[in-house]
Amino acid sequence: MSCCHIEGGDTAFTVDASRITFGRGCVAELGPRARSHGMNRVALFTDRRVADLPLFAAARESLLAAGLDVVVYDDVHVEPTDESFRAAIEFAGQARADGYVSIGGGSVIDTAKAANLYISHPADFLDYVNAPVGNGKPVPGPLAPHIACPTTSGTGSEVTGIAVFDLLSMAAKTGIASPALRPTEALIDPAATDTLPAQVVACSGLDVLSHALESYTARPYTARPVASPPHARPMSQGANPWSDFGSREAMRLLGLYLRRAVADSADAEAREQTMWAATLAGIAFGNAGVHIPHAMAYAVAGQVRDFAPAGYPEGEPMVPHGMAVIVNAPAVFRTTAAVDPQRHLDAARLLSGNPALDAAPAEAGEALAGELISVIRAVGMPNGLGELGYAENDCAALVDGTWRQQRLLQNAPTPVSREDLAELFSAAQGYW
Amino acid sequence: MSCCHIEGGDTAFTVDASRITFGRGCVAELGPRARSHGMNRVALFTDRRVADLPLFAAARESLLAAGLDVVVYDDVHVEPTDESFRAAIEFAGQARADGYVSIGGGSVIDTAKAANLYISHPADFLDYVNAPVGNGKPVPGPLAPHIACPTTSGTGSEVTGIAVFDLLSMAAKTGIASPALRPTEALIDPAATDTLPAQVVACSGLDVLSHALESYTARPYTARPVASPPHARPMSQGANPWSDFGSREAMRLLGLYLRRAVADSADAEAREQTMWAATLAGIAFGNAGVHIPHAMAYAVAGQVRDFAPAGYPEGEPMVPHGMAVIVNAPAVFRTTAAVDPQRHLDAARLLSGNPALDAAPAEAGEALAGELISVIRAVGMPNGLGELGYAENDCAALVDGTWRQQRLLQNAPTPVSREDLAELFSAAQGYW
Repeated sequence: MSCCHIEGGDTAFTVDASRITFGRGCVAELGPRARSHGMNRVALFTDRRVADLPLFAAARESLLAAGLDVVVYDDVHVEPTDESFRAAIEFAGQARADGYVSIGGGSVIDTAKAANLYISHPADFLDYVNAPVGNGKPVPGPLAPHIACPTTSGTGSEVTGIAVFDLLSMAAKTGIASPALRPTEALIDPAATDTLPAQVVACSGLDVLSHALESYTARPYTARPVASPPHARPMSQGANPWSDFGSREAMRLLGLYLRRAVADSADAEAREQTMWAATLAGIAFGNAGVHIPHAMAYAVAGQVRDFAPAGYPEGEPMVPHGMAVIVNAPAVFRTTAAVDPQRHLDAARLLSGNPALDAAPAEAGEALAGELISVIRAVGMPNGLGELGYAENDCAALVDGTWRQQRLLQNAPTPVSREDLAELFSAAQGYW
Repeated sequence: MSCCHIEGGDTAFTVDASRITFGRGCVAELGPRARSHGMNRVALFTDRRVADLPLFAAARESLLAAGLDVVVYDDVHVEPTDESFRAAIEFAGQARADGYVSIGGGSVIDTAKAANLYISHPADFLDYVNAPVGNGKPVPGPLAPHIACPTTSGTGSEVTGIAVFDLLSMAAKTGIASPALRPTEALIDPAATDTLPAQVVACSGLDVLSHALESYTARPYTARPVASPPHARPMSQGANPWSDFGSREAMRLLGLYLRRAVADSADAEAREQTMWAATLAGIAFGNAGVHIPHAMAYAVAGQVRDFAPAGYPEGEPMVPHGMAVIVNAPAVFRTTAAVDPQRHLDAARLLSGNPALDAAPAEAGEALAGELISVIRAVGMPNGLGELGYAENDCAALVDGTWRQQRLLQNAPTPVSREDLAELFSAAQGYW
């Protein structure tokens, strides 16, 4: 664990994890669990699609059977914006709830986190938003209890202290990051994914894969300068033995199951294992941090013009988060491999399921990129930024959008310049 | 994850983990961390040996520098008893502390848990003790904050809700088990192990190894009847994907590093990795539970006559916990292998560091026992119960002592009778 220690680097890492319950049918435990946190009146967050699912009905029923008052907010915006966050906060203010439950994908869980935050500790909206976009103020204390029930095998939001949104005035994704935002517990019921469209399984699964890859290749915690005071480690504290081991298992599982989970909605084993991988990768990246592919994705999603994917709500252009991330990933890992070829080769081995896969250090990045592209093609993702409607002359604006994500860029294995980002966006135009 | 589902078996598992910080020097973060939990006056638990270490001085200094009042209790009994727990509870009652810090091995951390419990929720001593020895009453609410700083790479007590002690009147080990007992956070500083005697590293490391092996081979969670209500899972909920993956990594690390950590106190890498394995195995067994080797160990330690090991406090006979566990392990895994040969072979592969190790299903138990015996001999453990002073005619009393540990026996991969236990104690008399 001391191989990458630098003078003035940190010598310890901190792992935070909330209680998780995983298994088919566990959403029926919601009511008594909400009670055990002292909830009496619950603000229940979801979106229109999920509100119609049997899983949502079962969850609501469990809350009511436990004697709780339930106020439903089903107006969550998929890929939330500052406007949609504000609307949710206004709802929560009127709901006068003493606890939060979120049932949905990352958009729903993140929206509940934001509502809980601004009702528990009122402030100007930009106060808690990550610097330099917002003021980056620390959250002053604990929030109200929040139970998160994810319905996609994706974001890992149920186990992280991060809430992501589009700041419309800047056409940029940004977020709020604080351990205080982490839900009190997570109920992860794979039954939620039985009815997910293939495209959603693909996008969210590739987000998970990038969580694992980015956590595994992030700057090691020993190469990050000690915080001041030392115990105030950032959430993006860098790769560490805990995140390494969760990331490796997630990569192995996704290599085995993601293609199957996308190809066949009736393949319950594959969808269950993909969801378990999402949980592990969520815990890993929540304690290590992601880096360049996610930083680039914020710009890719924020500057969308007319791309509209299948399987997502119609009526407005959007790039699903996982898609916006994974289109950058092969280009990024081709270049970061030079810093630590062994880790990139490890990742290629785990993803391919072939422990004997070999490559010279100079070829490790290509080996990983090749495995990645194979998965990306197999699950029907677009061929790079070109298919999302971006051209070479968009690179400057994409670099500008990415440059704002300094929290993520500083977690990269090696310093990244604006020129580096321009080259990466150019290389990510197309892969095959 | 559904391979072992039985009719009426559980379909979900729950993982609880507290915040952990791991790394050399992290004990210096104690003061601000105690402050962050609202502590003003700290009851600081330790034992006489640890109280003289630089690590203890650094921890106390950090608390004082953060402006906290500190009252020290250094009278913890190594391998605690009901009497020593009562003395600690009495101290805590007089100390009027609003938080607890424990710096020591499992004995110290367990004693602080007990003091915190009975001061936070006063009750008759036997009320919270595991049935059938005690009344097994649930802990009614949260305890005061407790930061645990382990100084041995052993018990994992810093991440579990278990406190173990000898009930003197029954000459039996028993314990208290509740999620509420789990320390609020753990500061795990490998510097604590620099000065540990080799015998202590060996005993605590073998306890860790058995945590991992027992969690990995425990009854699967899907074969445990659903709790009533379902969310009230016992801490010994059985093997699950979370505990499996922590157990496997702990076995792999111990196979690589335990011999080195015992052989050379200057081998910082080996001692650090052994401590990390202890943390992982502690989280695993805290969410899965141990079974037969630990149940037998309670009787082996409780009925000691005149055995006195090197490296431990002099003056009274005792069998260190890890030693009491591991002398049973080869005999147990030889027989449990019949239930799931693959898992026993997996364990042998991880422990040997040889993924190509092969054995027919009928030989998997022998393969694992062989690897175990090799480690046990290499680190200087006694050759079975015979060397601890037990003979064949002690088996009946040892079975009686073990039979009381129904919480653990029910977590075994297969039902265990008194006759089975008698055969195991006989087989554990000697191995080479």
